[in-house]
Amino acid sequence: MTGPRPATASEPIGLPTATAGQLRSARRLSRRKERQATGRFLVEGPQAVREALHGPVDLVLIMDEAAERHADLVTTAHEREVPVALVTDLDGLAEAVTPQGVVAVAHTVDVDLGAALAKDPQLVVICAQVRDPGNAGTVIRCADAFGADAVIMTEGSVDPYNAKTVRATVGSVFHLPLVTGVSLAEAVRACHDRGMRVLAADGAGDVDLDQLQRSGELERPIAWLMGNEAWGLPEADAALADQVVTVPMWGSAESLNLSTAAAVCLYTTAAAQRR
Amino acid sequence: MTGPRPATASEPIGLPTATAGQLRSARRLSRRKERQATGRFLVEGPQAVREALHGPVDLVLIMDEAAERHADLVTTAHEREVPVALVTDLDGLAEAVTPQGVVAVAHTVDVDLGAALAKDPQLVVICAQVRDPGNAGTVIRCADAFGADAVIMTEGSVDPYNAKTVRATVGSVFHLPLVTGVSLAEAVRACHDRGMRVLAADGAGDVDLDQLQRSGELERPIAWLMGNEAWGLPEADAALADQVVTVPMWGSAESLNLSTAAAVCLYTTAAAQRR
Repeated sequence: MTGPRPATASEPIGLPTATAGQLRSARRLSRRKERQATGRFLVEGPQAVREALHGPVDLVLIMDEAAERHADLVTTAHEREVPVALVTDLDGLAEAVTPQGVVAVAHTVDVDLGAALAKDPQLVVICAQVRDPGNAGTVIRCADAFGADAVIMTEGSVDPYNAKTVRATVGSVFHLPLVTGVSLAEAVRACHDRGMRVLAADGAGDVDLDQLQRSGELERPIAWLMGNEAWGLPEADAALADQVVTVPMWGSAESLNLSTAAAVCLYTTAAAQRR
Repeated sequence: MTGPRPATASEPIGLPTATAGQLRSARRLSRRKERQATGRFLVEGPQAVREALHGPVDLVLIMDEAAERHADLVTTAHEREVPVALVTDLDGLAEAVTPQGVVAVAHTVDVDLGAALAKDPQLVVICAQVRDPGNAGTVIRCADAFGADAVIMTEGSVDPYNAKTVRATVGSVFHLPLVTGVSLAEAVRACHDRGMRVLAADGAGDVDLDQLQRSGELERPIAWLMGNEAWGLPEADAALADQVVTVPMWGSAESLNLSTAAAVCLYTTAAAQRR
């Protein structure tokens, strides 16, 4: 949404105009291949850019009006020696309906499995072939909300640096270790090696989440394995888990969507572990 | 997604072609005003149409291929004396990227507050000015999943018969009583009259959900009041609730999105009430 402009005329802000080269390189980042080749991605909107500026950022591209409204961003970028350049629009740079006038070219943040699980992890989420960008982003946001130690996106999952996913994380992509491109078997093995129990969330489970909670089983270190939003977890994948767990449904819906199921599993586990 | 066509040539199915009048009336239902005037709405996709056929439906419009693939739908419609007509496309009739070749003109299903709360309600959701169609639909789906007795959408909320909302409910719009167009004060009063405690979910609550669960408070009949996805609950609205409750977040995210917060509140309450 567009907030009110200041009533008084703003000072000239003296920012350079983005060069054609800067715009061209930034726009290329809408392609996954380019993000992978460069290790850079686009972050949209003032809140996400603010979060990105805690880490390495190559460039902030901002519209005149946004530079006035979010002067703090320009100041922060300058303090961190990140170049800021003016653009007249965000065509090809932002996907949001309301990108709010600012994008940043940030360095990707994913780490390897060893680093992600280095600090005695208690709660981890493994997304196995999650393909919907909004769902993936919401799962990362929930994982962050409930204090998970890491999110692992296995091979074949949506690129977490996709603009829609980044937007759906609402900054959480910068808050917790993210692992990409590993196989499910590697991810499960790494969690097992760290003494975690791997629970697969699936509509056709051996046990329900509420039983597990009451038995005290959720108080142990747990990695939740979430399957694809349309087809769930193939049998071979579910078999890698120690147990397949169903979120009990007492009504008539056939299923939950991925992000609400993840929210319930992660909240219930985090609450149990903290008691 | 389009499944494989049968390998053998199908029999001619002998359905009439939709008339221009049928198409015109159906297409008008993409407008809220028309839905309100007629008490009809469009249901997309085989699964949702199947659910709709448990109640009153005026017409099923189906593409040739879908009529072959979902022959059960045509049979069910005929058994219930619902006319079925062929269309060559779903332009102006369906919004989904993959509407799967079938839509129905169904009667709207909302009931008044008295009817919705008639049967000793234990768990109700009140959506106060929820505007995002996907969020509203997901909340209805979660309410259904966790066995809620009713969903109340107050004045100023998105129309639950919007195509995006109906799609996000994945059939749940047909599973539980739905109330629309009442004021928040009326909704809260009706829940209070039925002996329910009204809990507002908000990031700035007096108490957290986990404390409430441990104290046994969630075992009582509860109506959850969920605010708008962007601005939450205005103070005056939150003041109508008996208590403002926060979903505890142990990580760094600033907030949860509406549907994941609703999922956690509803699951936790339903689980507590069923113990």
